[in-house]
Amino acid sequence: MTKERLYLYDTTLRDGQQTQGVSFSTAEKCRIAEALDRLGVDYIEGGWPGANPTDSAFFDNAPKTRATMTAFGMTKRSGRSAENDEVLAAVMNAGTGAVCLVGKTHDFHVETALGIPLDENLENIARSLAHIVAQGREALFDAEHFFDGYKANPDYAIECLRAALEAGTRWIVLCDTNGGTLPVEVGEITAAVIAAGIPGDCLGIHTHNDTESAVAASLAAVDAGARQIQGTLNGLGERCGNANLTTLIPTLLLKEPYASRYEIGVSRDALRSLSAISRQLDEILNRVPMRQAAYVGASAFAHKAGLHASAILKDPSTYEHIDPETVGNARVIPMSNQAGQSNLRRRLAEAGITVAPGDPALARLLDTIKAREEQGYSYDSAQASFEILARKELGQMPSFFEVKRYKVTIERRKNKYDQMVSLSEAVVVVKVDGEKKLSVSESMDAEGCDRGPVNALAKALAKDLGPYQDQIADMRLVDFKVRITQGGTEAATRVIIDSEDAEGRRWSTLGVSPNIVDASFEALLDAINWKLLRAE
Amino acid sequence: MTKERLYLYDTTLRDGQQTQGVSFSTAEKCRIAEALDRLGVDYIEGGWPGANPTDSAFFDNAPKTRATMTAFGMTKRSGRSAENDEVLAAVMNAGTGAVCLVGKTHDFHVETALGIPLDENLENIARSLAHIVAQGREALFDAEHFFDGYKANPDYAIECLRAALEAGTRWIVLCDTNGGTLPVEVGEITAAVIAAGIPGDCLGIHTHNDTESAVAASLAAVDAGARQIQGTLNGLGERCGNANLTTLIPTLLLKEPYASRYEIGVSRDALRSLSAISRQLDEILNRVPMRQAAYVGASAFAHKAGLHASAILKDPSTYEHIDPETVGNARVIPMSNQAGQSNLRRRLAEAGITVAPGDPALARLLDTIKAREEQGYSYDSAQASFEILARKELGQMPSFFEVKRYKVTIERRKNKYDQMVSLSEAVVVVKVDGEKKLSVSESMDAEGCDRGPVNALAKALAKDLGPYQDQIADMRLVDFKVRITQGGTEAATRVIIDSEDAEGRRWSTLGVSPNIVDASFEALLDAINWKLLRAE
Repeated sequence: MTKERLYLYDTTLRDGQQTQGVSFSTAEKCRIAEALDRLGVDYIEGGWPGANPTDSAFFDNAPKTRATMTAFGMTKRSGRSAENDEVLAAVMNAGTGAVCLVGKTHDFHVETALGIPLDENLENIARSLAHIVAQGREALFDAEHFFDGYKANPDYAIECLRAALEAGTRWIVLCDTNGGTLPVEVGEITAAVIAAGIPGDCLGIHTHNDTESAVAASLAAVDAGARQIQGTLNGLGERCGNANLTTLIPTLLLKEPYASRYEIGVSRDALRSLSAISRQLDEILNRVPMRQAAYVGASAFAHKAGLHASAILKDPSTYEHIDPETVGNARVIPMSNQAGQSNLRRRLAEAGITVAPGDPALARLLDTIKAREEQGYSYDSAQASFEILARKELGQMPSFFEVKRYKVTIERRKNKYDQMVSLSEAVVVVKVDGEKKLSVSESMDAEGCDRGPVNALAKALAKDLGPYQDQIADMRLVDFKVRITQGGTEAATRVIIDSEDAEGRRWSTLGVSPNIVDASFEALLDAINWKLLRAE
Repeated sequence: MTKERLYLYDTTLRDGQQTQGVSFSTAEKCRIAEALDRLGVDYIEGGWPGANPTDSAFFDNAPKTRATMTAFGMTKRSGRSAENDEVLAAVMNAGTGAVCLVGKTHDFHVETALGIPLDENLENIARSLAHIVAQGREALFDAEHFFDGYKANPDYAIECLRAALEAGTRWIVLCDTNGGTLPVEVGEITAAVIAAGIPGDCLGIHTHNDTESAVAASLAAVDAGARQIQGTLNGLGERCGNANLTTLIPTLLLKEPYASRYEIGVSRDALRSLSAISRQLDEILNRVPMRQAAYVGASAFAHKAGLHASAILKDPSTYEHIDPETVGNARVIPMSNQAGQSNLRRRLAEAGITVAPGDPALARLLDTIKAREEQGYSYDSAQASFEILARKELGQMPSFFEVKRYKVTIERRKNKYDQMVSLSEAVVVVKVDGEKKLSVSESMDAEGCDRGPVNALAKALAKDLGPYQDQIADMRLVDFKVRITQGGTEAATRVIIDSEDAEGRRWSTLGVSPNIVDASFEALLDAINWKLLRAE
């Protein structure tokens, strides 16, 4: 059986930008567009030219893409021709291969929001899209509130679609704008639209996640005959987000009944970059990646239950619906109060530590971990600190140096120009090979900017470790995460530090204390000790 | 038309505990069970008695609930009778009204994982469930890997269900254990099971979110005739989580076609506590609540696009699929680079500041906010700091006091008992009514525990504000969130502080700096100034 082609339309750069707390710079939009193009989506909606400076600037600097670059706008206002509508003109001026215009199809909105007669709205739709086609662009019509509109007045809603179609529109996109329509109704109404004479291979689906069903509703529309899916990376979007392409892409490529029925522009090879692209977007947005995200989340293939973990060791297919590597993700056997010894031995093996089954040290180590987790430690996310803890328990951790004391001073005062300036200074005293070493550093960086007390402390600690200095020279702190957690009854601070070295190794270490500087210092110590372990 | 009853089975305390990084204490399990009971679920699965100490302790101390308390376990092992299986005995000894046993229905797992003949597995199922029924308990059979099993060997999978049913089992639960089955297949296979003679009103559905479809798959099973839904609060669970009851409950109560077809044990009144229960669980787990969560997320009713915001002001139903208050949530009009002036005026109105439309100050304020957001500020999540910023721009912010300088010292050294101890000290110099005031505080709390530099700084700052001292006496710092964010080219630290006062007011303030202590100090200043504003 020959596969039918489904088209992917990405709106991360337009609808995705509606996410609360998200605003892309032009440079970031370009990076994301390039990633989307490498991935293999068919359309990239870059924004609304004229609506805000960033979007206009993006189209001026947009990268050359294999995907069809698309500008978003709205149908012309009443009382002027499409040619003389300057909002529409700004959209056309972006010079993209395709243009998508949103218009109303819900009689209630036409009469209340626009306040114009229903016929006039039909004419605005027809004239606006005819204008785009006349300019030799590929035209898309975004049917706003279509599903609510269809339920209120099916004949009028369909008339709006027909007006766009007869004007030469390539894609009619059924939008569930407020995200309130459930998959079963999306499927039924999409089928009804096709039955009313709008061909399925001209139909797109645009859903939102307000009932946590955007992905399923998109698939329901495809089941009914729609052939274009609109969505965003990581499900970005207003309110609860848009349909998540990061989920839909692997589902369409790997899962039945879709994999054998349809083909998309994303290759198996590109699919292996999916987890990396998802994380790259979170980095651009400075968002903490969602552990539980389908396919690409850090927990997506994390097997915690002791029973599952041991079964996984025998045969991964028992508890994994796909091979993590097909989406560039990896299997995790985390530690936890539930962890059976099989988890623990697996985790130790990953750290290169072998312990015989039933070795009493295993039970001892589990107890230590449980006690630590009670205090607020979380070794799931800090494998390097787990390894150091385990080696100490098992008597396999060398003592490279000893910290005798440290002192950090943070001062903020007016400088001679009467500006408020702050500076931190750290003194660290360590004992290496029986020799006492005092080091002092301040928080000022090369640009004369104060990087704060943890920075000063890190520099002082790494300043003079005698014989070990060369081994830590290439290491740098790349990420620093802080959380307030419940340490027993009192709130404590959990610090996780990610470090990297010249060989591209990246490791995470952990510190917990009510004092954020102490917690950071503990994580810094682990980071250095882990590096020294590897250097041996 | 009379509504059919659907039953809700919550497994937050058992499957939810499989979430990476989650481990409940017995006390926490009791609090969650009480919340679930108030909400109105029908079954509360408390854990696996005997599998770990916390679960056993929970059943000993479980609260009296209207919901049926349920113990989870597995079918008896081969080679012994149900009566003599000590794992099963531990489950029975929990003395719950209902017992749910997981068993295999996938021939591949029976032969590889268990390594026993297919008939023997059928007998283990039948004997185990008959034993539960004989003890006068309500019996549930958890058909592990059922959908994969059915696809591999439908006859055998159905035989397993029939074996349980004929033993007197009340509920047969179809489990998609690895989360790989999509809604369309879940619906088809559930219908096939009913066609094979297993009554729909004995069928439950248990799905996982590995394709982001757990909620939709549960609804597909209900569409096909299943009458029990299993899930967890906030979609907790192994890997990508279980079906999210926090989403399913409002969908079943409020959304078509479900609201008019079915009734559940949750009342409209209890539904208004849903957002609070969701946040309570996140607090227990010290998890950052998911902004984009359907119905209950902080962004679920956040309207960012300028167009939407202005429409919302006219008529909320235009862009909201339900009234936020029905689930105890609230509408948000956040600030952002995309915000039109209508957003801004709405946000100002919320802060009690009225500005005439078109007032040039609006444009000025928007520019300031955009510039600040470039540096890493995020006013979406700190309304109090937004208000202070706005009042400064508009010349409506009184200057209560001036900070001249501060100094914080953090020391860590051995005490006379040769233990490492740390202590922070803060000196703050402020000018109030032309009078200079020096205050010093240390980080030691009443229990002699070091609370860290920010604590010392907060105490020193609030120690002597002269005439304003009484007005801030009742305020306390209740939460402290830290994020590393991109301030221009350099990484900066964003601190958000939540404060509370005796009148139960809670407000969020914001500080950004490469120096975490400076960022905290900025947020503390805003917190005090906001409180003084309100006190006026």
